[in-house]
Amino acid sequence: MHIDLNCDLGESFGRFKIGVDEEIIPLVSSVNIACGFHAGDPSTMRKTVQLAKKHGVAIGAHPGLPDLQGFGRRVMEVSEKEVYEMVLYQIGALAGIARAEGTVVRHVKPHGALYNMAAQHQGIADAIAKAVYRFDSSLMLFGLSGSELVHSGKRVGLTVVQEVFSDRTYQANGELTPRSLANSLIKDEKTALTQVLRMVKEGMVRSQQGSDIHVQADTICIHGDGANALTFAHTLHQKLQQEGITIAPPH
Amino acid sequence: MHIDLNCDLGESFGRFKIGVDEEIIPLVSSVNIACGFHAGDPSTMRKTVQLAKKHGVAIGAHPGLPDLQGFGRRVMEVSEKEVYEMVLYQIGALAGIARAEGTVVRHVKPHGALYNMAAQHQGIADAIAKAVYRFDSSLMLFGLSGSELVHSGKRVGLTVVQEVFSDRTYQANGELTPRSLANSLIKDEKTALTQVLRMVKEGMVRSQQGSDIHVQADTICIHGDGANALTFAHTLHQKLQQEGITIAPPH
Amino acid sequence: MHIDLNCDLGESFGRFKIGVDEEIIPLVSSVNIACGFHAGDPSTMRKTVQLAKKHGVAIGAHPGLPDLQGFGRRVMEVSEKEVYEMVLYQIGALAGIARAEGTVVRHVKPHGALYNMAAQHQGIADAIAKAVYRFDSSLMLFGLSGSELVHSGKRVGLTVVQEVFSDRTYQANGELTPRSLANSLIKDEKTALTQVLRMVKEGMVRSQQGSDIHVQADTICIHGDGANALTFAHTLHQKLQQEGITIAPPH
Amino acid sequence: MHIDLNCDLGESFGRFKIGVDEEIIPLVSSVNIACGFHAGDPSTMRKTVQLAKKHGVAIGAHPGLPDLQGFGRRVMEVSEKEVYEMVLYQIGALAGIARAEGTVVRHVKPHGALYNMAAQHQGIADAIAKAVYRFDSSLMLFGLSGSELVHSGKRVGLTVVQEVFSDRTYQANGELTPRSLANSLIKDEKTALTQVLRMVKEGMVRSQQGSDIHVQADTICIHGDGANALTFAHTLHQKLQQEGITIAPPH
Repeated sequence: MHIDLNCDLGESFGRFKIGVDEEIIPLVSSVNIACGFHAGDPSTMRKTVQLAKKHGVAIGAHPGLPDLQGFGRRVMEVSEKEVYEMVLYQIGALAGIARAEGTVVRHVKPHGALYNMAAQHQGIADAIAKAVYRFDSSLMLFGLSGSELVHSGKRVGLTVVQEVFSDRTYQANGELTPRSLANSLIKDEKTALTQVLRMVKEGMVRSQQGSDIHVQADTICIHGDGANALTFAHTLHQKLQQEGITIAPPH
Repeated sequence: MHIDLNCDLGESFGRFKIGVDEEIIPLVSSVNIACGFHAGDPSTMRKTVQLAKKHGVAIGAHPGLPDLQGFGRRVMEVSEKEVYEMVLYQIGALAGIARAEGTVVRHVKPHGALYNMAAQHQGIADAIAKAVYRFDSSLMLFGLSGSELVHSGKRVGLTVVQEVFSDRTYQANGELTPRSLANSLIKDEKTALTQVLRMVKEGMVRSQQGSDIHVQADTICIHGDGANALTFAHTLHQKLQQEGITIAPPH
Repeated sequence: MHIDLNCDLGESFGRFKIGVDEEIIPLVSSVNIACGFHAGDPSTMRKTVQLAKKHGVAIGAHPGLPDLQGFGRRVMEVSEKEVYEMVLYQIGALAGIARAEGTVVRHVKPHGALYNMAAQHQGIADAIAKAVYRFDSSLMLFGLSGSELVHSGKRVGLTVVQEVFSDRTYQANGELTPRSLANSLIKDEKTALTQVLRMVKEGMVRSQQGSDIHVQADTICIHGDGANALTFAHTLHQKLQQEGITIAPPH
Repeated sequence: MHIDLNCDLGESFGRFKIGVDEEIIPLVSSVNIACGFHAGDPSTMRKTVQLAKKHGVAIGAHPGLPDLQGFGRRVMEVSEKEVYEMVLYQIGALAGIARAEGTVVRHVKPHGALYNMAAQHQGIADAIAKAVYRFDSSLMLFGLSGSELVHSGKRVGLTVVQEVFSDRTYQANGELTPRSLANSLIKDEKTALTQVLRMVKEGMVRSQQGSDIHVQADTICIHGDGANALTFAHTLHQKLQQEGITIAPPH
């Protein structure tokens, strides 16, 4: 039994620092590197690629909306064509840097609002899947378990990696509870740990409506911001190993 | 006898239009496509790659300084490391789009202030040459004839393509007369035509100081902005053909 | 009887030129100047303020969403707080430039997606009205006739100026037909002229559903992009004068 | 005897946090607030204005070069006209926000590379002084003691406030030792404290060449980044009070 742990990395911009990249990277098997639109810049990207290479974790592109101030978290009414093009641009930019460092991009995971838009809207999901496929059909596509992005990725012929969250609650329809609602976040560590282990081992999660729903857990999203996040990441990492679950990048 | 004609293309940004790309492209054999830092955006880049592919001209990346408002023409005190990284990022971004369109980037020519900085400062020139080489050692590097960039490209092992200007005057040391000085531009069409033909056929140009200097003319820079520029491009194109000089991308 | 004609101006950015400001300004009585977020830059703003001052037209701030690439036309999920702050910033920036040129900002009209958001969402409309009022309670607020922005402006105590469109069709509920629908634009000059004159003289417009609806026509939006737009502006200007309707800024 | 202590504040951008604004503000009498070009955004500016108002410190605009990635620290070849316009824009933007918060901007201090350029180049210094004066002739202008900016401010008729540094060494010509040189920074707290007290009390500083030079010390620049900076600020604040020197904004 094995699982991937992934984390967003390289989110600094110029002198503006975000994240504890050096501390979180030993705990994960895949990293999603910001590509300059919502965060990241060429120098940060290169440094992060070097860090990932040094730690032997799988490198992914983490394309986002062109909104540095909003950190790519504000939904924008971008067209499917624009999404296709901006994703291609960002993957290419990171791939260029990776290539010069003697390594490669192995997966793509959209960021923030783009991730959520791709989970729900087929047109946006298709645009992303198509961009990834046309850039390199051997790249893996990370998306919310059971989401439109996962469907689009499969349709286009990509290997998809379905993502689950330890610290978010689920709705009966399989969607995450929106952050705007109370109970969207699981703040109790034990509850989070129990939820994530059940998802990994049984492929099931209890929804907010009380029903059990199926989730495909190929990768778990780890957060690197905040002291608690780091502590939880340690706990989760340890617990998975205790349970005999191998932490490794998807393939 | 053959020569390359190159032109900067894809310099629009969103709804902001620059250039007459459709009209200039039939006259050239290579295009340098802006990569989003001083001009260009993912949509414009894709559209321009498609245009270049349709016309069968060689595609080049045209990386610039991160200064959209100044169109990459304002010198910035960027470090060699920053130059290396920003060039890599921009080549990668364009290469990603080209790849998805089923074509490839064949050369790199820095833009504006970065072009001038690379002509004079070895450190900047080396950073660009290294970025190009590490991205893909088969890419050609365009630089001002006899400049530091040409030397750096050769040193690192790249095929260099030396560029001459029909509408700019030269100094005895081989540099272009700075735009800040009078007589930096040749406004008379006949003089421009005579100068460029001599450069192509004899490898010589008369400097502002009166001396003849050697220039290696592998490619001629064509401007696409303004009615006069387009007219001159037509005239030059015709004249070269009359003289039996083949217009073709470098190889 | 009098009416204001207003036009968006100063939409260039650096070397990227948009609009025929010099040609359209003699035909209008108010101008809305872009403030650097969706278009415009400090140099363009100053030049446009000087142009407006020279022509004796009323100067307005034209704040937009922070999206240069999308020209402020892509809806973004910005919070009411963010809208309040970005509008304040942009009005202040233009007011600073106007002040140094010995003139003043007299009105505010939100741009593009922000204009449409403010027409429909009370929270966004209130945020804009509050920003304008707190900056200077004597400023006038331009908004779509009958819209939420007009209501918010009145509530907060601002003088509101209600805007109508000659080239857009209306829905029975008073809203403009969305651009995504067919028949959103009136392409026939005569129809446009008839519609706008009736709005000015009778305060009525025929909706797409066939019913006559009331509109308060304090100002007419004139477009400056495209040859047809300029021709129509001339025609409208002439027609209004023939009908004895004075063209003057609101007060 | 009195002295002003000033600190750069409001340097965060969106979710990117910089500085310990809440901790440093009780120690200073003036703050320089970033205006969105090299750092800061409308929300951060408003929050910082509110913080300054709450603490009763004087508010200043801190305009910088349009280079968020480089934090306004990379010299750019901007024209004097561009400097004039960008300074005006930034002062206006902050003044708009201050006005809505019921307070006012009292001074202007250029940031980073713009500060250094203004210290040495009369044209740049004049452009800044003129922008400040035309915006509001009662604003105070902060500049390096004895610099071109100070001369320009005086010439144009502004009240100038001359700034000294506790942690930087001086050259015999009165300039700061460039950061690129060794010994540009004073790392020993005692030495820094001795230097700054002598500047305040005697108006003298020992240059790197050994000679004593005159400096006018109206305000001392306090840094808020790093634990040591905060500790030193506390020490300096305490020491000045012990010496009977009142800490107060200039007037």
